[in-house]
Amino acid sequence: MAWDIPFAELRSLLGERFLTTQAARAEHSRDESHFTPVLPDAVAWPESTAEVSAIVKICAAHGCPVVPWGVGSSLEGHVLAVKGGVTLNMNRMNRVLAVHAEDMDVVVQPGCTREALNTELRATGLFFPIDPGANASLGGMAATRASGTTAVRYGTMKDNILALEVVLSDGRVIRTGSRAKKSSTGYDLTRLFIGSEGTLGIITELTLKLHGQPEAVSSAVVDFPDIGSAISAVITTIQAAIPMARIEFVDETAIRAFNAYEKTTYPERPHLFLEFHGSPSGVAEQAELAGEIMTAMGGSDFRHAATTEARNQLWKMRHNALFAAKSTKPGCIVLTTDVCVPISRLAEAVLETRADIDASPLTGPMVGHVGDGNFHCCLLLDPDDPRDKEAALDLAHRMAERALRLGGTVSGEHGVGMGKKKYLEEEHGAAWEVMGLIKQALDPQNLMNPGKLVKEG
Amino acid sequence: MAWDIPFAELRSLLGERFLTTQAARAEHSRDESHFTPVLPDAVAWPESTAEVSAIVKICAAHGCPVVPWGVGSSLEGHVLAVKGGVTLNMNRMNRVLAVHAEDMDVVVQPGCTREALNTELRATGLFFPIDPGANASLGGMAATRASGTTAVRYGTMKDNILALEVVLSDGRVIRTGSRAKKSSTGYDLTRLFIGSEGTLGIITELTLKLHGQPEAVSSAVVDFPDIGSAISAVITTIQAAIPMARIEFVDETAIRAFNAYEKTTYPERPHLFLEFHGSPSGVAEQAELAGEIMTAMGGSDFRHAATTEARNQLWKMRHNALFAAKSTKPGCIVLTTDVCVPISRLAEAVLETRADIDASPLTGPMVGHVGDGNFHCCLLLDPDDPRDKEAALDLAHRMAERALRLGGTVSGEHGVGMGKKKYLEEEHGAAWEVMGLIKQALDPQNLMNPGKLVKEG
Repeated sequence: MAWDIPFAELRSLLGERFLTTQAARAEHSRDESHFTPVLPDAVAWPESTAEVSAIVKICAAHGCPVVPWGVGSSLEGHVLAVKGGVTLNMNRMNRVLAVHAEDMDVVVQPGCTREALNTELRATGLFFPIDPGANASLGGMAATRASGTTAVRYGTMKDNILALEVVLSDGRVIRTGSRAKKSSTGYDLTRLFIGSEGTLGIITELTLKLHGQPEAVSSAVVDFPDIGSAISAVITTIQAAIPMARIEFVDETAIRAFNAYEKTTYPERPHLFLEFHGSPSGVAEQAELAGEIMTAMGGSDFRHAATTEARNQLWKMRHNALFAAKSTKPGCIVLTTDVCVPISRLAEAVLETRADIDASPLTGPMVGHVGDGNFHCCLLLDPDDPRDKEAALDLAHRMAERALRLGGTVSGEHGVGMGKKKYLEEEHGAAWEVMGLIKQALDPQNLMNPGKLVKEG
Repeated sequence: MAWDIPFAELRSLLGERFLTTQAARAEHSRDESHFTPVLPDAVAWPESTAEVSAIVKICAAHGCPVVPWGVGSSLEGHVLAVKGGVTLNMNRMNRVLAVHAEDMDVVVQPGCTREALNTELRATGLFFPIDPGANASLGGMAATRASGTTAVRYGTMKDNILALEVVLSDGRVIRTGSRAKKSSTGYDLTRLFIGSEGTLGIITELTLKLHGQPEAVSSAVVDFPDIGSAISAVITTIQAAIPMARIEFVDETAIRAFNAYEKTTYPERPHLFLEFHGSPSGVAEQAELAGEIMTAMGGSDFRHAATTEARNQLWKMRHNALFAAKSTKPGCIVLTTDVCVPISRLAEAVLETRADIDASPLTGPMVGHVGDGNFHCCLLLDPDDPRDKEAALDLAHRMAERALRLGGTVSGEHGVGMGKKKYLEEEHGAAWEVMGLIKQALDPQNLMNPGKLVKEG
């Protein structure tokens, strides 16, 4: 270590909310990725922006790295303290600070999860739509520029954050915007911190845009004879500008896993899971138009989820794809990866990836937020067989290279973390160097989640 | 001058596309703002990214400022070469490079105007919605994070740009994204350059999102007994989540100017100008819901613009507000300014501003993109009477301070330029210093549109 951990100062600041126990460190040594766990040197639980600022100041004085932590649901090793240092578990900063129903915005602390927020909002008629599947912390979702099933309609985190409060690497606290809907006064620091994965500062407060709970919601599933026709149906639906709230691709392998895990009896064919939001007549009109397109592309009749319970069941099942996949191969671990391509290249990207997995020794269900051109595969591997891991990494590598070849990006929503850093030079060219210049300007000591996202000096 | 203009090198690069004539310099000495013209030392007309890069490299070697220029429609002195140097007129880089109808995106050069783009797109069924009124260049619109009448539905420039190509201060060329709809791979440089007003680099190519031309469009006007009830109607409409395509406030003074300039006979009362986009039934439903709200708030019946011609006439009139205002006071000049506040504070902001103007010696119609909480006033002043200018600047100052007091921003869409720079410390606090750090990192010589947006070292 080139630095010393300021144990005494942090303990005196935080008392029992600063731990160096093996248990606390182990609990913060991994996320949902396949990376080997790495123990931070200590874990701190701040309760206020002032405490985060004080911790960062102390750490900065000692050259000690600081790694923010939400719920640990990241998928590319974002929260692993690969250079040691102090992990800041933000889950005591989990309050909803202000609901401005009349302005359709809300101010939250970063440890608040998306489900907790929506529970708190229930009576207001408003909701926060971004849904990455996991019940992630909103700070973590901002830090990774998360999106998920509803992004096709409501956008990603970058479209749904009005302003942030951030503690910089020297402990200074800044606010990056106001509650006004738009502004042309200066560099867009809000968007700069969204997706910065803790490398430029620690998000301590978020002002989020809310949306009206739709008057009517309707969900349906439809199956197709093959992947190509399912994807063609998606492309045509999006091009027809039907304002889909969700349009999710679920391949045959994933359907088999769902049927086994959830005891459902879906036909073992590629599916689309759909949702429509709007007025009752608007929803009916959207569903009719989408239905006509799906039928023309060889899809089955819509099977509607008639009740709220059936609808919740459908999306719960979709969100449990990872667990369903895992259950098909007892003892396995999962390497999950995502890419995003222009929608005109989606069929190629999905078909080539499916063929590539089929030609490998591995099983890998594919699911995707296909309205955005974004899809995932969950590769199941035996943790004790190094050949499996190698095969999985090879597949993920070819998937990333394929996305770049097709004019896309190596991650639509999971982020860079440790797993995708090796592609950033290829994806961004000289723009990656510019990211490095910004990192250097804002964190000259390289203490904010070091080892992630940017090239190291 | 601390630098020398590399006349010979630039002339040898550009031939007759590099001019130092008084006429060329005078033509590029002003925008639509009230600022005293400032002559650049020379004007260059590049025709390619490679030429922009070469120009910037030559200028950088001589420490010579570079100021990008679109059509000169900026409103806060953005394009004035206040430190001298070379102005880059981008209007020879005005091509539409590629239309990807299947992906609903388009690649354009920065000198292409929004109207030229939409003319080119007419046959595709797609359009680019952002409409700041002026037929601005798309590069300029990106640089100022422009928005306008349709932002309430389609967002601002920040929501409608997928990627940029930018020439940095050392002549390096970067690309800030791909054609994928979303990405989580690294800092959002696209959004960093949007709104950077030429201070971080020169935009040489834009990849824009397109939208489907709405199947049905319907416009209407409605008048109200007073400003308060008009604004209340806006707030309620937005809170009811009616997806308004346009909802424009036009005050009594502006209506009087329209009636005089356009020979119309609108009742001399505050108005809302509305537009609905969607399917025929969707548009009818939206109009009905909005109508009910407006009536409940004291509005008149909708007077629909029945034909495409009538609709175009309505929006042309709205866009000509500046000229209509000018015509009411022969020989006057106009100081136009905008602010944006959370919509719950909009009534206060507008009413206080109206009262403030009424108590001044000046006339000033007010119009606004009120669905976003954004409004403008056009203050008419006698250029030969310094008291008028002083009164106008005082009013604009109080409007800015009022916006900040109400939790808003000193500009919703016009930008910083020279006019609003003095408010950035108050609006952004320490975040303004962070903007300065980024400027310093990307443009260490301070050659890219110097004197604008950031604090000077």
